[in-house]
Amino acid sequence: MSVATTTISEACAAAQRAARKLAGVSTEAKNAALEASARLLEERSAEILEANAADLDDERAGGLSPALRDRLALTEARVAAMGEGLRALAALEDPVGEELERRTLASGIDLQKVRVPLGVVAVVYEARPNVTIDCAALTIKSANALVLRGSSYAERSNGVLAAIVREGLAEAGLPQDSVQLLAGGGRGALAELATQDGLVDLLIPRGGEGLKQALKAVATVPVMYAAAGNCHVYVHADADLEMARRIAVNAKVQRPGVCNAAETLLVDAAIAERLLPEVLSDLRQAGVELVGDQRVRQLAVGVEVGAATPEDWDTEYLELKIAVGVVDSLEAAIEHVNRHGTGHSEAIVTASQEAAERFVAGVDAAAIYVNASTRFTDGFEYGMGAEIGNSTQKLHARGPIGLRELTTFKYVARGDGQVRE
Amino acid sequence: MSVATTTISEACAAAQRAARKLAGVSTEAKNAALEASARLLEERSAEILEANAADLDDERAGGLSPALRDRLALTEARVAAMGEGLRALAALEDPVGEELERRTLASGIDLQKVRVPLGVVAVVYEARPNVTIDCAALTIKSANALVLRGSSYAERSNGVLAAIVREGLAEAGLPQDSVQLLAGGGRGALAELATQDGLVDLLIPRGGEGLKQALKAVATVPVMYAAAGNCHVYVHADADLEMARRIAVNAKVQRPGVCNAAETLLVDAAIAERLLPEVLSDLRQAGVELVGDQRVRQLAVGVEVGAATPEDWDTEYLELKIAVGVVDSLEAAIEHVNRHGTGHSEAIVTASQEAAERFVAGVDAAAIYVNASTRFTDGFEYGMGAEIGNSTQKLHARGPIGLRELTTFKYVARGDGQVRE
Repeated sequence: MSVATTTISEACAAAQRAARKLAGVSTEAKNAALEASARLLEERSAEILEANAADLDDERAGGLSPALRDRLALTEARVAAMGEGLRALAALEDPVGEELERRTLASGIDLQKVRVPLGVVAVVYEARPNVTIDCAALTIKSANALVLRGSSYAERSNGVLAAIVREGLAEAGLPQDSVQLLAGGGRGALAELATQDGLVDLLIPRGGEGLKQALKAVATVPVMYAAAGNCHVYVHADADLEMARRIAVNAKVQRPGVCNAAETLLVDAAIAERLLPEVLSDLRQAGVELVGDQRVRQLAVGVEVGAATPEDWDTEYLELKIAVGVVDSLEAAIEHVNRHGTGHSEAIVTASQEAAERFVAGVDAAAIYVNASTRFTDGFEYGMGAEIGNSTQKLHARGPIGLRELTTFKYVARGDGQVRE
Repeated sequence: MSVATTTISEACAAAQRAARKLAGVSTEAKNAALEASARLLEERSAEILEANAADLDDERAGGLSPALRDRLALTEARVAAMGEGLRALAALEDPVGEELERRTLASGIDLQKVRVPLGVVAVVYEARPNVTIDCAALTIKSANALVLRGSSYAERSNGVLAAIVREGLAEAGLPQDSVQLLAGGGRGALAELATQDGLVDLLIPRGGEGLKQALKAVATVPVMYAAAGNCHVYVHADADLEMARRIAVNAKVQRPGVCNAAETLLVDAAIAERLLPEVLSDLRQAGVELVGDQRVRQLAVGVEVGAATPEDWDTEYLELKIAVGVVDSLEAAIEHVNRHGTGHSEAIVTASQEAAERFVAGVDAAAIYVNASTRFTDGFEYGMGAEIGNSTQKLHARGPIGLRELTTFKYVARGDGQVRE
């Protein structure tokens, strides 16, 4: 295998050296590396599937749930999709070198604020081999070096995929060390990676709450946490009830396992009697398990609604289950969302522009929807071309993390001898 | 005293409630609060100076160095300067509500990216009472609530100053709890403040390395570290030597105690023999203690140059001392700066545009200067109106932290019933 096996700090140092070379390369060279990697994926498809079959046959993978096995498994179609992902990134605009601001200072200095790569981006992820390629595509295009720590369940698959990208980089004349795949190594290795100060410029964990908490306790490098989404749909007193039913169902069931799916439906008391029987029935028919507060349960007709516990309002189910509550006012809805939400995606359904604007101003979240499903929070949907995750942080990136969010900037001040008085 | 004394989490929760109200207030109301605070500072100047005198007379302050006593001391002129600072912020453009991007998505959704306040900003600082007002001014204008933890040395001064700003807020009809001053409490209180997840949106420590390290070990809320600056001036082979001397001296001596002052001078071997005798003499005449490498010491004529230790290249002296080294090439200079620098402000002096662009591209720092002093890295100089510090982080804010850097954004998506297919 062509991927170097070194210590974590050696790998990060090699990535940093590569990053310094990458920072100055042309858009054409980066695109050539993406195209070459896509071609190599196709050419070596059999080798990839063989490695993946070995990962799936490994006795360690025996205990995986069907859902996790499915995430680990590659098919011809999935390999083709990875290639398409690489080519899609090649077609996007290069974020590096963009002039963000420019002005002449009082001293006569020409001050330019210009977009530059972050440097070394590390990604920790679970047993999804496609993440290897997705992350490589985004970081190559944004001229960042990448340090990957995948799951040991996927080590053979990831090994082949990383080797392919390294070969694609070499074909384009770019440093192979721009992509580094670390061997496994458990929580100790995670802590070591998360403390490579001065080498790792950004660490992105793509995994569940356990991974997030493990990192919070040890990380000293900058971390951007991909988000948990406890998202709400609030149906205001002035809502179009047919639209409300459509949005509530879509936000919950269109893809329940993702972070922008709705977990709670809040219904204004003024329309609860008219809306609830119908929307509860819609949801139930779509296979959704329902829990609700006292008023919801009283208004449920012919639909089983369990009693919501206090924990339900804070739970990201990520499955076909929803908590339903009645609120007495717009203010109460905003209050509920701010208390229980995770700052991801929050929707109001209303025909009142005034109510919509109060919800938009009052709710503290990355994305606020007026008369639309929460499911649109996504780099592709937002026209960013791709995403490496969604951020509920307020600093740096909020919402979809795309190419621009993988960059920083520097100020360049050009003078002719200016000194400060 | 009108400042509430509560627990840290109560204070942060009160600040968050205030922040949610502040987010929607008009520019006029924020400016009125700033103007009222400025007027109250003048009216209550005697009271401020009395409190400050009591702080200085306190037996705890007896052990402070003259420099620290000077930082703690207020005068009529310093109080007037704080009032001017408040009025200067009132005159600046309001960052809140700015539309950063807008587009119509394929689904027909109108997507807007709009600048909003962060929420609750906490600042930990040493015994400089003017920081109380500087931070209040910046956060009020950016519609953030502020939680201050000052030094116990300055508690009487800070108490009066915070009370004045709270009164100014109340006069303008804004929530007084937008500014909270915590009582002291040592490192335990610091750790408590740094772990108020969900309440504190940003913590800014303004202090030395000890404070930074203490926070790195415990903080779970987002932290933006004000920078250490180990800044370099590199004189290239093609430099105008007279300009190089002027820039080197200015970068070191114009204000040696600040983070954008130069700490190392690198001289290209090609011009070392011509430049060094003169620039070393210039620096010495300006009162600068010199340490240098072997080649520098050999070329020093009639000027005492101590032997630089390996530690010298990594030291931020913050005083009239500089390390001087000879480098063999532009690449060696870039390598030295990237290895020893802190990513703050780095300068090249050269008449070669090609060399300048290689330095700009190769050096990884917040600000790169071509033929100008490093001393210009400053929010006022950069036309940002004010700053709360300088960041050497790459995420969110890099360089001066001004009003915009104290904001985040939200996506607002307005539809007419869109659901995801």
